[in-house]
Amino acid sequence: MIPFNKPFIVGNELKYIEEAVKSGKISGDGIFTKKCHTFFEENFGFQKVLLTTSCTDALEMAAILCNIQEGDEVIVPSYTFVSSANAFVLRGAKIVFVDSYPDNPNIDPAEIEKHITEKTKVIVPVHYAGIACDMEKIMELAKKHHLFVVEDAAQAIDSYYTFSDGTKKALGSIGDFAAFSFHETKNIICGEGGMLVINNPEYNVRAEIIREKGTNRSAFFRGEVNKYGWVDLGSSFLPSEILSAFLYAQLENLGAIQEKRIRIWKEYYRNLLPLQEKGFIKIPEIPAFATNNAHMFYITCRNYEERSNLIQYLKTKDIHPVFHYLSLNKSEFFLKDNAPIDIPNSDHFTDCLLRLPFYFELEEAEQKNINSMIHEYYSLLEK
Amino acid sequence: MIPFNKPFIVGNELKYIEEAVKSGKISGDGIFTKKCHTFFEENFGFQKVLLTTSCTDALEMAAILCNIQEGDEVIVPSYTFVSSANAFVLRGAKIVFVDSYPDNPNIDPAEIEKHITEKTKVIVPVHYAGIACDMEKIMELAKKHHLFVVEDAAQAIDSYYTFSDGTKKALGSIGDFAAFSFHETKNIICGEGGMLVINNPEYNVRAEIIREKGTNRSAFFRGEVNKYGWVDLGSSFLPSEILSAFLYAQLENLGAIQEKRIRIWKEYYRNLLPLQEKGFIKIPEIPAFATNNAHMFYITCRNYEERSNLIQYLKTKDIHPVFHYLSLNKSEFFLKDNAPIDIPNSDHFTDCLLRLPFYFELEEAEQKNINSMIHEYYSLLEK
Repeated sequence: MIPFNKPFIVGNELKYIEEAVKSGKISGDGIFTKKCHTFFEENFGFQKVLLTTSCTDALEMAAILCNIQEGDEVIVPSYTFVSSANAFVLRGAKIVFVDSYPDNPNIDPAEIEKHITEKTKVIVPVHYAGIACDMEKIMELAKKHHLFVVEDAAQAIDSYYTFSDGTKKALGSIGDFAAFSFHETKNIICGEGGMLVINNPEYNVRAEIIREKGTNRSAFFRGEVNKYGWVDLGSSFLPSEILSAFLYAQLENLGAIQEKRIRIWKEYYRNLLPLQEKGFIKIPEIPAFATNNAHMFYITCRNYEERSNLIQYLKTKDIHPVFHYLSLNKSEFFLKDNAPIDIPNSDHFTDCLLRLPFYFELEEAEQKNINSMIHEYYSLLEK
Repeated sequence: MIPFNKPFIVGNELKYIEEAVKSGKISGDGIFTKKCHTFFEENFGFQKVLLTTSCTDALEMAAILCNIQEGDEVIVPSYTFVSSANAFVLRGAKIVFVDSYPDNPNIDPAEIEKHITEKTKVIVPVHYAGIACDMEKIMELAKKHHLFVVEDAAQAIDSYYTFSDGTKKALGSIGDFAAFSFHETKNIICGEGGMLVINNPEYNVRAEIIREKGTNRSAFFRGEVNKYGWVDLGSSFLPSEILSAFLYAQLENLGAIQEKRIRIWKEYYRNLLPLQEKGFIKIPEIPAFATNNAHMFYITCRNYEERSNLIQYLKTKDIHPVFHYLSLNKSEFFLKDNAPIDIPNSDHFTDCLLRLPFYFELEEAEQKNINSMIHEYYSLLEK
């Protein structure tokens, strides 16, 4: 059986968990959380990072930091995970959904501009499959209209964007805030986990407070105040040190993980390109401004029915690809309070996009099998 | 050095984490989360439980389930952790703080009644030190005024309340909802973690949805709907399977853990009773309606200065007791929007309560040392 995803232990995960227990601290912000923070800040140019219990929770922290008030508008692609929207809805925001490019699930800056109003407060670009949105254009729009940018970088660790002046920056280091995920399907994992990036140092103190249940406990531990108490809104956003220990062991192997993933990605690309040339499927093109972090390999089928048949065909061969998001503008929750709207490119990816099995331990023979079964499906279709 | 707390591995924690990875699923709701759910439901009579990333998050789920709206009033003891209040503030509630008993940090039902208004929606009894609040009286008030009861049972695992008709129920199984903690300082731990208990089955479905980012994913996996989508508010409240695996290994040893803790508690009680008889300190009395889960051993000093001196004295002996909450009605956050109010018993515990070192691996000789140093402090004071 070839599943869509498979979590993995790559190095010292269990040893580090034992060390955390022996260190006398497995609640949040112990030695391994600090090691993870340092790793991310030093390797990706993030001004400040804070591990969280999930990417969802990092987005919720960003929503509080943007000081969302009832009725503020937040621009979100319709083709995304519910949390990109829900995190802002919890603070009272009105979500304004916009469309993807026709040939790329990322949000289209031209569409963003059409939807900016007096009430817009935040743009949430989601770097789908870890491939950059056009951040230069998005940051220009944000500057022009005085908006926050919260990068939903759930899938985008170790991925980069190059500005027109040649400056290359890690995704997550460009907007005001960014949220990453370490869910079991991501490049580096701890099951459920996430991280908030704060790129404007003005928000460092408040971010720490919000993450510590609205208390100034972090400042207390640094000796900056002589007792700590309730000073703000907040929640328990910090993860168990058990998870940070697991994550740090993965980070130590980031190079090897990424090398393997890029090999898998390229092999899918090379092998499935002929099916694109025959007009059966589309395979992803990486824009010139973006790098590829090999988070995901997806194909786009010609229509819903063909995708459904392909999924079924592969399942009979014990291969388990999966589709992805459903246009959020068509959700029960959105339609409860809003009139139907048409977001066609998002619907296209809802119906036609298919994610192929992709994980660190995927073996060459398994991938060969997947590729040949996809070819087999289309050669049967040709007959 | 004798710390206040020390996390511990008691059995198969690391083995189960490895098993979780091998099972192919370390995101939430894998095999160990289900084992934990079953354990709690079968052993404590909880109608339904859902593991969460923290007790704070379980309280936030309860706040959403109570459908808190802007301006609803929620009754909370002033002597509690910020999250008992913050979870409801995040949904727009006004917190109404009430006092403890003079000789017990638990909320005083007579005080609750005085503060019930037309706008009151929820009472949040906090079972301090794992010892039951007077739930019969609190449930009667709730029934009379049509209020929700959310038990903050953070410290109260394996603790019970006996009603006047002789019925004995586990704390957490009495209110509409209850929130437990598995933070590293608790009886059973996973570093950071929690659990929501739902005692009214009418809320089962919505609770699952809220915990799964507002989607009906759980129903989808059970085959009850044929696709899942965004249907409600929600967040990512479910913990990594890595934490559930750790927690389950602890649960398997609950009996041994509790036996050891009760021995430690009784030894403190027996040894420090003479200091109460001399009028130096107060030690906890367990009400007739409550059992003792040996979560904590605290003493109450005569005043703030004496407590500070005792802490200092013990620190010179490398023993690290800690004080606890600060009256929330005196917090910066509360006073920003509210006039000062007087809550004297809460202030008394803020100033005078001291928690002694208490953990599974605390050795007899260490405890002997702690007790004799406390006696030494007071004998020096007597001179």
